[in-house]
Amino acid sequence: MILRQTAITLSAKPRGFHLITQEVLVHLDLHGCKLGVLQLFLQHTSASLTLNENASADVRRDFERFFRQSVPDDSPYFEHTYEGLDDMTAHLKASLLGHSVTIPITNGRLALGTWQGIYLGEHREHGGKRRLLATYWAEADA
Amino acid sequence: MILRQTAITLSAKPRGFHLITQEVLVHLDLHGCKLGVLQLFLQHTSASLTLNENASADVRRDFERFFRQSVPDDSPYFEHTYEGLDDMTAHLKASLLGHSVTIPITNGRLALGTWQGIYLGEHREHGGKRRLLATYWAEADA
Amino acid sequence: MILRQTAITLSAKPRGFHLITQEVLVHLDLHGCKLGVLQLFLQHTSASLTLNENASADVRRDFERFFRQSVPDDSPYFEHTYEGLDDMTAHLKASLLGHSVTIPITNGRLALGTWQGIYLGEHREHGGKRRLLATYWAEADA
Repeated sequence: MILRQTAITLSAKPRGFHLITQEVLVHLDLHGCKLGVLQLFLQHTSASLTLNENASADVRRDFERFFRQSVPDDSPYFEHTYEGLDDMTAHLKASLLGHSVTIPITNGRLALGTWQGIYLGEHREHGGKRRLLATYWAEADA
Repeated sequence: MILRQTAITLSAKPRGFHLITQEVLVHLDLHGCKLGVLQLFLQHTSASLTLNENASADVRRDFERFFRQSVPDDSPYFEHTYEGLDDMTAHLKASLLGHSVTIPITNGRLALGTWQGIYLGEHREHGGKRRLLATYWAEADA
Repeated sequence: MILRQTAITLSAKPRGFHLITQEVLVHLDLHGCKLGVLQLFLQHTSASLTLNENASADVRRDFERFFRQSVPDDSPYFEHTYEGLDDMTAHLKASLLGHSVTIPITNGRLALGTWQGIYLGEHREHGGKRRLLATYWAEADA
C-alpha cells in the first residue's frame, strides 16, 4: 500500500478559470501506483477546484461569465465585503464549486476521461499564489 | 486492506436526473468490506453525480426544472455552443453538482442515509452511455 | 495503516449555516495519524457540508441570504413541497453544496488552511439532529 502527501504551490493567476492539470502532475509520483485515488485539496476559501473540459478555452471564459452573472459582485445584501466586491462572491463560488477534487488512479496515471482537466477557479482579483495538498493512496505494482 | 477498482457503463438516459443506486450496486463486491469508502467517478464533463432523495420521482423532476431555469440554455453570452444550446450548460451543471460522490462503507453495505440515493444528472439531450469508475478501499472482515 | 469510522450526531440547529469544526473534532482520534485523509459524510438529503471562512460570522449570514435568493422557497414550479416551502429547496441546496467534505490529515491534525472551517448548511426550518459518518485512513506514526 502506497500513501503519499505532497504540498503544491500554484503560481498566482488572474481572476477566472485556469487549466492546471500539468502544473499539478509534475509534483506527483504515480509510478508504481497500480490502482488507487488522488485527492487534491485547496487550503483557501476564495478559490475552487473542479474538473471540466480540457480543450476549448472558451469553456473557461463561459464559466467566468456565468459565475459573474449568477453570483453578482454588486449584490446589495452582502455584509462581508471588507476586502472589496469580490470578497463575499469568492467565498460563495468556492463552496458552490468545491475545495477539492478526487480522481482515481489506474496503472500509474490519473484515470481522467478524454476531455477532463483540472480547473482552478480563481475568484479574487488578486488571489496570489495558492496552496494545494495532494494526498494519494494506491496499491503498489507487484 | 481491500482496494478494488471497477469500470461501470451506465445505459444511455434522457436529459434529466436519474436514480442509479441499483444500476451501480450490481457491479460492486462489498462482501467482506468491514468499513471503508467508495468513490464513484464520472469520466465525463457534461453529466454529474450527486446524492439526493431516493423516494419521490418529483424531486428528480424539480431538479431538472430548477437547473434549466438557473443555468438557461438560451443565455446569450455563451461562446461554447458548437454542439447545441445544451453544450455549455451541461459543462456548468457538471461542475456545480460535481463529477463524483464518495460514500462510506459499513459492514459490507453503503452507509447511505434512509432517504439517500445516487443520482446521475444527464445534462445533454443525447448524452449516450456514460462511464463510471468505482474505486473502494476497506478493512477486511477478520 | 489506520482505518477508522465514527458516527457523530450533531445537535439540532436553526436554518442557516453553522461552523461545526469543534463539534466534529471532539469525536475524532487523530493521534498517531501521520498522514492521511478524513471524509465526513452527512446521511441526509436536506442539509449540506462545505468548507469556508472560520472567522467572520457575517460570511455565514451572507451564505444564507444568497441561497435564499438563488434557490427561492416560493418558486412556483416546484412539485415536491409536501413538507412546506423549505422542502424542495433544501434538497437542491444539499446537492449544490454537497453531502460530504474530504480533508487531508498531516501529523495528527486536519490540514485545513488558516481560514478554513467546516460548515453545516441546515436547509430546513426544523431539521432536528443530523447524523454524520466520519471515516479516516492514515499511515500510522512509526
